[in-house]
Amino acid sequence: MDFIDELKNLKEQIKFNQKFNITSEYDNIVISGMGGSGIVGDIFQEKFSKKPVITVGDYGIPEFVNERTVFIGISYSGNTEETLNNVDEAMKKNAHVYAITSGGKLADRVKNSIIIPSGLQPRSALGYMLMPLFNTFDPVDDDIIKKTYDILDSMDKNHDEMRREALKIYENSYIPIIFGSRPFKSVAYRWKTQFNENSKTFAFYNYFPELNHNDTMPLKKAYRRDEYRYYVFNSDNLRIQRRIEITQEITGESFNIITAPTNEYFEKLFYLIHYADYLTYELALVREVDPTDVSTIEELKSKLS
Amino acid sequence: MDFIDELKNLKEQIKFNQKFNITSEYDNIVISGMGGSGIVGDIFQEKFSKKPVITVGDYGIPEFVNERTVFIGISYSGNTEETLNNVDEAMKKNAHVYAITSGGKLADRVKNSIIIPSGLQPRSALGYMLMPLFNTFDPVDDDIIKKTYDILDSMDKNHDEMRREALKIYENSYIPIIFGSRPFKSVAYRWKTQFNENSKTFAFYNYFPELNHNDTMPLKKAYRRDEYRYYVFNSDNLRIQRRIEITQEITGESFNIITAPTNEYFEKLFYLIHYADYLTYELALVREVDPTDVSTIEELKSKLS
Repeated sequence: MDFIDELKNLKEQIKFNQKFNITSEYDNIVISGMGGSGIVGDIFQEKFSKKPVITVGDYGIPEFVNERTVFIGISYSGNTEETLNNVDEAMKKNAHVYAITSGGKLADRVKNSIIIPSGLQPRSALGYMLMPLFNTFDPVDDDIIKKTYDILDSMDKNHDEMRREALKIYENSYIPIIFGSRPFKSVAYRWKTQFNENSKTFAFYNYFPELNHNDTMPLKKAYRRDEYRYYVFNSDNLRIQRRIEITQEITGESFNIITAPTNEYFEKLFYLIHYADYLTYELALVREVDPTDVSTIEELKSKLS
Repeated sequence: MDFIDELKNLKEQIKFNQKFNITSEYDNIVISGMGGSGIVGDIFQEKFSKKPVITVGDYGIPEFVNERTVFIGISYSGNTEETLNNVDEAMKKNAHVYAITSGGKLADRVKNSIIIPSGLQPRSALGYMLMPLFNTFDPVDDDIIKKTYDILDSMDKNHDEMRREALKIYENSYIPIIFGSRPFKSVAYRWKTQFNENSKTFAFYNYFPELNHNDTMPLKKAYRRDEYRYYVFNSDNLRIQRRIEITQEITGESFNIITAPTNEYFEKLFYLIHYADYLTYELALVREVDPTDVSTIEELKSKLS
């Protein structure tokens, strides 16, 4: 599949209807994943808080994990070293272990695995990996899925805005800084990683209101300020919206506000994700780098093994 | 107190012996704080995992908070908007609410408050805010406290290494990027915020192994690579140590490895924290900015209120 076809596949992925059948009682949910698979747990954690949700992006699991824990390993390839290590540890502690993967060792090891289609770049399979979590713990209405589909479809057909923005970044060699806010802090991180992997550029992120306690100082007084370009997600939280305005006013910086055509959580989530898909893809094209190339990461994995 | 005296005060703070008297049973711990107070919960969470610990750096608390939750609000001033909001919400949900503060509205509102000395910059009171968490949940041996005191004391007497490093940053207008690893990912974030607040420079962070899934690409192929200077904490985890070596090898970047004179968790924690104290302080001096000045943050708070 071409990379552009992978991007266009996202709207199909949100229809993925598999879910876990969790029959036991549990006290907490631990989700283990790295990179493009790890972001899935972070997105879910920001939305769902009826139980404590702990995400692990590392070797090793928390001490509290026990037979009252739902433990979910997510790895697109099914062969991510850190995640396999953690699934083994969780099994030893008698947690209820589940997995989301396209196959690999993870599918072999975890009986309760949801198998998703293979053949994509892991970062292009975000919808497949995320939907089982929503379907299981926090189902999304059909009409919202349908509206989201239409939003993504119209972005697939026309992403001139993202192409123009990519050109601006390219012409100025800007480094993007993305300022998210809840429930889309994890999406700011997703933007960063898409710039890293697709465009091969640095990118950084922070979020309101936390950045008002630190990044606000250099925004006004640092050197190299002109080399950055700031992206901020429009918020329907009035306190956050006010912070966005005042931060620009007192620092003199001007943010590019990304405004979704909707305030509904799920629709906005995928709009913001897809915006970065196209922005970082277009930036790769204009920089003449291959958006699918992650050879440096692959080289590292092979040297480690 | 002069700022340099505040820095030197850290070694006294680790002797702070107050703790909470928690007599009720509980299932989880939620810690709410922002900026220099928020980092306290993040440091603690990385070390302690016998119960689920959730940190909140935002307005609003998780839905699961109830009468089986220990909820700890941390605000040095006692007047942080986000934290006060969250303490009120936690009380409404009948959580066991505690606080660490030098006074303000938080001390008025929360009966079970540990009152710490006032008159410092919040970011200079890290030891006072952190010790009650350790004392309560994960006490530190006296001989480790003593050894840590000696390490900090020797840094107070001689920090030529950090001064030289600050000069290098200044002469090249470098932007620091700090790559931490567990259990010191939060310390990498602390470095970032100290650069922001003390030196008024941008700074960014990530951690091993997560950065091997994204930042590894631009490390090799991005523009503006030469404008960054990379700091990495030495790890006694062999898998992480190997990742640090291979990442340098395949990207061609050279990291400045910060090696603590000890591998004991608590001693190393405070060594790494204090390293950044002096590095960012010296950078402020050579840049001729006032390390105590956080007027932009204060201006924002007053416009918000």
